[in-house]
This record gives sequence, structure tokens and C-alpha cells, in this order.
Amino acid sequence: MNKTALVVYAHPEPTSLTRRFVMETVGTLEQLGHTVMQSDLYGMNWKATFDEADFPCRINKDRLAFIQESGHAYATRQQTQDVAEEQRKLLAADAVIFHFPLWWFGMPAILKGWIDRVYAYGFAYGYKGEGNRYRYGDGILKGKRALLSVMVGGPAKDYSPRGINGPLEELLFPITHGALFFPGMDVLSTHAVYGTGKLEPSVAEAEISAWRSRLEHLFDEAPIPFRHQNGGDYEGHVLAGHISSGRTGLAIHVDEGRADQGIDQCQT
Amino acid sequence: MNKTALVVYAHPEPTSLTRRFVMETVGTLEQLGHTVMQSDLYGMNWKATFDEADFPCRINKDRLAFIQESGHAYATRQQTQDVAEEQRKLLAADAVIFHFPLWWFGMPAILKGWIDRVYAYGFAYGYKGEGNRYRYGDGILKGKRALLSVMVGGPAKDYSPRGINGPLEELLFPITHGALFFPGMDVLSTHAVYGTGKLEPSVAEAEISAWRSRLEHLFDEAPIPFRHQNGGDYEGHVLAGHISSGRTGLAIHVDEGRADQGIDQCQT
Repeated sequence: MNKTALVVYAHPEPTSLTRRFVMETVGTLEQLGHTVMQSDLYGMNWKATFDEADFPCRINKDRLAFIQESGHAYATRQQTQDVAEEQRKLLAADAVIFHFPLWWFGMPAILKGWIDRVYAYGFAYGYKGEGNRYRYGDGILKGKRALLSVMVGGPAKDYSPRGINGPLEELLFPITHGALFFPGMDVLSTHAVYGTGKLEPSVAEAEISAWRSRLEHLFDEAPIPFRHQNGGDYEGHVLAGHISSGRTGLAIHVDEGRADQGIDQCQT
Repeated sequence: MNKTALVVYAHPEPTSLTRRFVMETVGTLEQLGHTVMQSDLYGMNWKATFDEADFPCRINKDRLAFIQESGHAYATRQQTQDVAEEQRKLLAADAVIFHFPLWWFGMPAILKGWIDRVYAYGFAYGYKGEGNRYRYGDGILKGKRALLSVMVGGPAKDYSPRGINGPLEELLFPITHGALFFPGMDVLSTHAVYGTGKLEPSVAEAEISAWRSRLEHLFDEAPIPFRHQNGGDYEGHVLAGHISSGRTGLAIHVDEGRADQGIDQCQT
């Protein structure tokens, strides 16, 4: 069945590996019969900084409170046009793919600013005016899929389960769990290419080919089995004592029983 | 002894709790006889997006490669003035304090863009032209202290060791370990205020008072005992097998033996 995908990307150089992956994404998905929307953040000159210009019709002109103004602007349809347009794309998408280089173990600022600004109160959080009731598996983006495609300058070893940088999937947890699963999306395990600073052309081609294969399963691959807030594993938003008993850290929010991929759980 | 501190902050509203903490920081440190420099990112209209405008004198005008241009601009003193000025402040500081609201489990984009742009190749990474040799405890900022002061909208429980958001110190690991310890700074444990969306005035006053007490120990508090890359715990940038044996995840990069604070290591 034909689906709709949104591709959000953050690299200004058309010949970069990030952009070559974007081209592959658009080409492959269209070839599979899907519809593709694009958000080329550098090309759009996306405004990264969330500030007073985001609220042309303030509820309180004396004091800037972001959550209050964000909620007001969203509810009264007085957001800026660029933000409203990205929300429209998100709602229209069945899957959202993010392409970006890993900069200081996270998103480039322009992409973080896309999250900061597009994720309005009432939309991505405070859904249905119910505070934290709908999140982590429930929310306005429930049923959609999300996938990060990340270009990493350093070697894979440094991001391995005991590598010095920390495991990549845990470094990205604030994004996968905190920004994508939070408003309800099913998040696939991150697709990373390492050592991108000095990739041989033949290796780059092999990586693009591997990405193409991955894309073919965009709509049937099993997502990271993050635990749903409202699925019975949490008591008052804290993991119930009998689950992952005695353990702490980020990986306990992945359901090992359901896990066939995702955050590395090995205790070897 | 009198020291010099740099305060970097990211909130545009002068009456926000973030800015009240900034005022407390400046006032308290000056009262203690220290010199304080400020980087008011919103006030400076800091450019968040790292792009071609960062490289007025390109080494390659046909293709934008960030690491190459960053290294060239830094080495030849052709960086933009705003970036060079922030690097000068970092080098002049004995301690750097960051004040920001937690947005989507990370820094506001304007602050991420400060890291992206100021952390040039040859300065914060690739130090001395030696690739990854000097990092995680070694680097250009070695001997300086760093401290995050974070305003968190949600309740502390959700960020507790088994809370649904993940423990705050692990969510911030890409910043504390990845951006601050990386170029050599000693990082103190994060100072967080929770539930900032609806803080009673008396509670806010108590939080400011607690922060003042913390500041008084800025230069004698024990930092998070992150393991030094070149301290003998790593073999080829992977944690040696006999250390934190059988474990994975972010917390293994904290030396429990030295730990009297920092990332929660409990297995209770």
C-alpha cells in the first residue's frame, strides 16, 4: 500500500554523504510507490532559535513564558506559518526520516530548533489538555514511524557497548525516546554510518546500498520496543519494582522481552 | 584566590527563573571576589546555525566540508569574530557555568549552536593536530571546571533513577561527558530545579538560596569522576574488560571507586 513519508534533513552541502543518503531515500521510496515530502532545513533557511518572534499574538506581552504562549498560539491557530506547515507535514506522514551528521553527540542546532519550535504545547506535549497523560507511546503522532539516519565522524568502536563515547543508541535516547516516542511514534533502531570523515568511495557506495535495503523495510521492520507509559509497566511514571528489578539507566525503558533490536541490553 | 568565571545562558525573558539564577550567579561570584564574564546568547542574538557564513575564507569554495573549513579557519585565525571571542572567554575562564531550560531533554537550539560553532577543529577536538589523542580529560580546556544549571519543567520523580524520562544525568551525558569533559574540563554534577512550570514563590526563593550555597563551593567541590581516556582504564578507546566487568551503558564511564557524586550507579 502506498504511504507518505517526510524526510527532514540538516546538511547544507549537496555532495555530502548526508545529502546522498537523502537522495537515496527520496528515490527509493518514490520507486516503491510512496509519496515523499521534504524539509531541507538549511535550504529553507529554517529559523533555529525559539524566541518571541514565534508568538506574533502574545497572550502576555509583558513576560515571555514559552509553554503558555506556545499553547495559546497553537490553540488559536496563530503560530508562524513555517511551524504550522511542519506540523501539517508531520500529521500527513506515515513515517518520518531524519538525516543529519552527529555533532557533539547530538543534532545540529538547526534540527534541534526544528524540534523546539514545531513541537508546540497542545501538539507534541500537553496533548488534549491532559498534561502528561498522553505520551511515550500515546500522543498526536501515534501510529507513525520514525527513523534516524546518522552520519558519525568517529569509528564504530568508540560507540560500541563499552566504547569511550558511550553506545550510540543511548546517546540518542533523548531524541529517539524523548522526542520521537514521546508524542507516540514507533521508533526504528538508528541507522548509523561511522568514520564518515574518511570513507573510501567503494565503502560509501556499500553504505548507500545497505541503506536502500533498510528503506525497503521501513513499514514492516519491528521498532525499538520502548515501554509504553500507559501499558502497565509504570507506577506513577516510575518503572514498577518487579520490572528490570534492581537496575537503573536508560536501557530499562526498553522491553527486553519484546526486544529483537534496539538499545543493546547485553550483560556479557 | 580570585578566579574568573564565564556564565553562558539561554533564556530571553529577564524575569524567568533561568535568568534569576544567572543574576544570583553573577552576584554571588562577584561578592566572593571572582571576575565574571557573561555570554547572554539571546541578548547577543547568537547565530545558532553552523553554516557557510562561519567560513569567510574557504579552503575549498566548491564543497563545504565542516571539519576541514573549521580547522582551516581556526588555524589561520580567519574565524568569525563572534566565535573567536567566545573561544577567548573560554580560555580566560577558570570555570564555565551554563544556565538553560531543558527543552526536549537537551539544550535549547541556540545553546547547541554555541557548542557547534565555538568548538572548532584544532580547538575543542583534533587538539594539537593529534586526532583523538587529547580528549576526555585532556584537551585545551583541561583544568577548568564546568557546571550545568538546568531548569526542568517536569517533576523530579520522572527523572529519578527509574523514572520514565530516564535519569537526568544520563540524559545530559552527551553534554557533560561529550561536550565538556571531552575537551578536558572537570564537570560538576548537574544542578537541577524541577517542576519549574508551577513553582511557588517561596519554593523559588529556597531554590535560589540552595544554588547560592552550591556556588560557594564551585572551586572546591569534587567533580563527576569520569574516566580519563589516557588514565589506563581504556584499551583502544574501549573500557578494559576487568573494569565494570560485564556491564554496558553510559554509567560505566564514571569511576565508581572515585565516585562520591555524579551519575547514579546504584543497583539496589
